[in-house]
Amino acid sequence: MIERIAILGTGLLGTSAGLALRAAGFSGQITGWNRTRDQASLALEMGALSSIADDPIAAARECQAVLLAMPIFATLDYMAQLSNALTPEHLVTDVGSTKGMIAESAAKLFNSPNRPAFLPGHPMAGKERGGAALGDANLFRGAVWLFTDDSTARRTQEAVALIQSWREWVAKMGARVIDLDPARHDELVAWVSHLPQFVSTALSALLEEEVGNAPELKDVGGRALREMTRLGSSPYSMWRDIAHTNTEAVERAIHALEQRLAHLRENLRTPALRAEFEQANRFRRE
Amino acid sequence: MIERIAILGTGLLGTSAGLALRAAGFSGQITGWNRTRDQASLALEMGALSSIADDPIAAARECQAVLLAMPIFATLDYMAQLSNALTPEHLVTDVGSTKGMIAESAAKLFNSPNRPAFLPGHPMAGKERGGAALGDANLFRGAVWLFTDDSTARRTQEAVALIQSWREWVAKMGARVIDLDPARHDELVAWVSHLPQFVSTALSALLEEEVGNAPELKDVGGRALREMTRLGSSPYSMWRDIAHTNTEAVERAIHALEQRLAHLRENLRTPALRAEFEQANRFRRE
Repeated sequence: MIERIAILGTGLLGTSAGLALRAAGFSGQITGWNRTRDQASLALEMGALSSIADDPIAAARECQAVLLAMPIFATLDYMAQLSNALTPEHLVTDVGSTKGMIAESAAKLFNSPNRPAFLPGHPMAGKERGGAALGDANLFRGAVWLFTDDSTARRTQEAVALIQSWREWVAKMGARVIDLDPARHDELVAWVSHLPQFVSTALSALLEEEVGNAPELKDVGGRALREMTRLGSSPYSMWRDIAHTNTEAVERAIHALEQRLAHLRENLRTPALRAEFEQANRFRRE
Repeated sequence: MIERIAILGTGLLGTSAGLALRAAGFSGQITGWNRTRDQASLALEMGALSSIADDPIAAARECQAVLLAMPIFATLDYMAQLSNALTPEHLVTDVGSTKGMIAESAAKLFNSPNRPAFLPGHPMAGKERGGAALGDANLFRGAVWLFTDDSTARRTQEAVALIQSWREWVAKMGARVIDLDPARHDELVAWVSHLPQFVSTALSALLEEEVGNAPELKDVGGRALREMTRLGSSPYSMWRDIAHTNTEAVERAIHALEQRLAHLRENLRTPALRAEFEQANRFRRE
């Protein structure tokens, strides 16, 4: 059903989506655009795109589905522009890591009879560094791809079909689709995604202070330390928007972990330590 | 030089040491003993041992080098027994995760003219679960093996040669040897090993509380969450002794992380968040 896709933003996720679509058998047109053209050129060379667009809005108009693969505030900017430029026969979807503001914007600007359709999406996949060069056709394989479509508007038949078609391509890329309410989404990812990131950032920053002047000692921690600090490489540029758009839920999650750590610290020599380990063991039990 | 080794404790580390010695070309005798005999039988079947001993002290007497591969308090118990049973021609070494109490005990019970030699050791390798079945000839490959020998006693020529020989076998197993003062060791591992463990335990226990009743949502976090909670599977039985023998250093490290998390939480929308990400990025920079 979808034959022409525009990918706006050809960093890690946009490039990976293009590659994964091709690997899944999508043979239609994939037009790409990126704020800095070298990333789009690289995505084209890698086979993620069939062409590069000079004007993202014009490229979107010529396609049926538009994938916004950029940070959240940029996504909100392009949503505003695209809602005026496109028609009810267009579908816009995204990969933003928080969905509250995006769903709110979608309700205002999209999904009404004269407006294009918007399907808020969030693939739970990534790497600790971004960029087209790390693009990977298998990035979404085995990952969860969340959708938070809470629209109650009557959509055109075309829009319904485009949404169905995009969901099928997501499944063909190897992802498992889960539908969630946007508020529940933001609460959930605060726990299972944002909290782990901010913990790794805090741990890495602390360790840089404590042992950063003795690089040979960084190796001492071995695999366990490498895993716990891998996310510490994640760039501020990506996480700033998440911190700004899911602040309360992230604050609650971090605060809960501070309290949990204090509890553990106060019980290093008491039986409560056993209970804490047993509770942790349960989380990892298959 | 070392031709007969006794491995007391044939769990993950003891069994891996036997397998790694064989893989490195050690062709001498490796006698194993374990508190529960099935683990020793398994290690024997896997090729980590050449025989099983019924009596650990008698087995130690018949060997030149004794590797204590058991939790810290058990190590301290066997040190007391072995210091009386062995002679200055014997070397005892261990794999305990904290070294303050072990080094203190070694200074009292070993390393004097009429006593056996003791070399405190700590391979920075492991898995989140123990047991002989996970034994791995490559476990120490690329890992750091710490020694905290602060003895100033004049050792017999035999003892010096045995220590040298053991250090060489450790290198042949693929580990990189670093020597540290015991107090510095315990301080360092509190940061690079114990803190990551306790953070993962606290995070896993917290998440079990928050999303444990919705198992399908555990997958949402993907690879990042799996990595940050892998250590959450670690058993209390192992970490209890660490918490008891390195309490102050671990308390300081956990408390410092609590403060760091609070700082991050209070600055989710300020420029200080950028500074924190940049400091974290530095830790992971090669």
